[in-house]
Amino acid sequence: VSSTPRPAGMPRRLSRASPKGRQLREIVEGLVSSLGPGAPLPSERALAERYGVARMTVRAELDRLVAEGQVYRVHGRGSFVAEPRVAQAVALSSFTEDMRARGMAPGSVVLAQDVVAAPPLVARHLELAPEAPVVRIERLRTADRTPMALERAHLPASRFPALAETDFEAASLYELLENELGVDLRDADQRVVAVPLSADEAELLEVEAGHPGLRFETVARDAEGTPVYHATSLYRGDRYEIQLQQERP
Amino acid sequence: VSSTPRPAGMPRRLSRASPKGRQLREIVEGLVSSLGPGAPLPSERALAERYGVARMTVRAELDRLVAEGQVYRVHGRGSFVAEPRVAQAVALSSFTEDMRARGMAPGSVVLAQDVVAAPPLVARHLELAPEAPVVRIERLRTADRTPMALERAHLPASRFPALAETDFEAASLYELLENELGVDLRDADQRVVAVPLSADEAELLEVEAGHPGLRFETVARDAEGTPVYHATSLYRGDRYEIQLQQERP
Repeated sequence: VSSTPRPAGMPRRLSRASPKGRQLREIVEGLVSSLGPGAPLPSERALAERYGVARMTVRAELDRLVAEGQVYRVHGRGSFVAEPRVAQAVALSSFTEDMRARGMAPGSVVLAQDVVAAPPLVARHLELAPEAPVVRIERLRTADRTPMALERAHLPASRFPALAETDFEAASLYELLENELGVDLRDADQRVVAVPLSADEAELLEVEAGHPGLRFETVARDAEGTPVYHATSLYRGDRYEIQLQQERP
Repeated sequence: VSSTPRPAGMPRRLSRASPKGRQLREIVEGLVSSLGPGAPLPSERALAERYGVARMTVRAELDRLVAEGQVYRVHGRGSFVAEPRVAQAVALSSFTEDMRARGMAPGSVVLAQDVVAAPPLVARHLELAPEAPVVRIERLRTADRTPMALERAHLPASRFPALAETDFEAASLYELLENELGVDLRDADQRVVAVPLSADEAELLEVEAGHPGLRFETVARDAEGTPVYHATSLYRGDRYEIQLQQERP
């Protein structure tokens, strides 16, 4: 019998009605949601002994929770409750605003900034002629210096020529558009899909290749309905979630 | 010089300003969005010859588009534009309603249906006592017989005892709740995360293990604000997307 104290919500034993691995997973998920970020979880050995399951079964379930970003491991010290994911809601807001609202310091590393011929999809979304010039801004977005997202934005170069020269390590695109360039950002259409991260993307985001990511494709418009920018943003799946409030029509 | 006709939106040549792989990707994405589902794409050889890039570069970009569900291959016949992903919007609706609205025939394979002690997370979301009895319904959801999602729903057994006996291969949970059981479903909170599919999940969904999925965690409430069900739904990342309309506050 293990001497680890029993946190609230941990059952005394497993039932016979469903697979042991799943029951363990549900127990650990219950702990993750009741304990705070950074709280230590019972050791693999303690869980295996308490519930009479193989150590491998415990490890496999913890591996999954680590892959999903609910738990993290520290070598030689055990498993801990991860920070909650950053949530994306239905208000149109910038990365800078989102991170500040959560008390994190937003940062950017500019990977590319130039004027290029609009790729076909971008030209269509921005309602531009094929191959019209667009300002392309590619940034690695960080929160408290941790990589969170890769963002590639395109804006019409004829309307926003100055953006090709702005220092985006320091500036927020939204602040520039709204405060300096007089743009009345109004709304956006967004598509979100789950994709596997390529080796290049994974390296920049400091995760394993093939790790799942959320890809947001956004077209934002001003008060006249004119497209202002098209952006493709790739967020780490283990650090980001979407929160929706749904109403029954 | 290849004799393949040049679809609208395909540039004549690549620029020197950005990597060839990315430009090819943008060209093929443009074709995917302008051609209809099922339309053939130029062959790897034709693309490689036209743009003067290595066949391997073309294949690597097509591999990514296949992994993302934008393109599919038929052995010996080439690459084709995939069906658009099924979109999830902000209205609270059932899988059955979503698929019918898209002209697809919804189906279910019941994987488990029983009464169990509520797992800790479920008890908290349903505002039940720890280990209170809940009806658990696990289904593989299909659209036109293609696996789309794995869904695990829990409902309070004291309120809905009949659901443990209902034939869910034929029935819609929403129709039962609203039309037979007098429940006034009103709204739901939903969290969406990207996760890697486990080997078991991937096998049921007929994709590769590790393939990305969208996991929806939903708590639906009635007009009194009482939680009606808690559901965890795992959708194939290559077949599903979320569409959001955002407004600037």
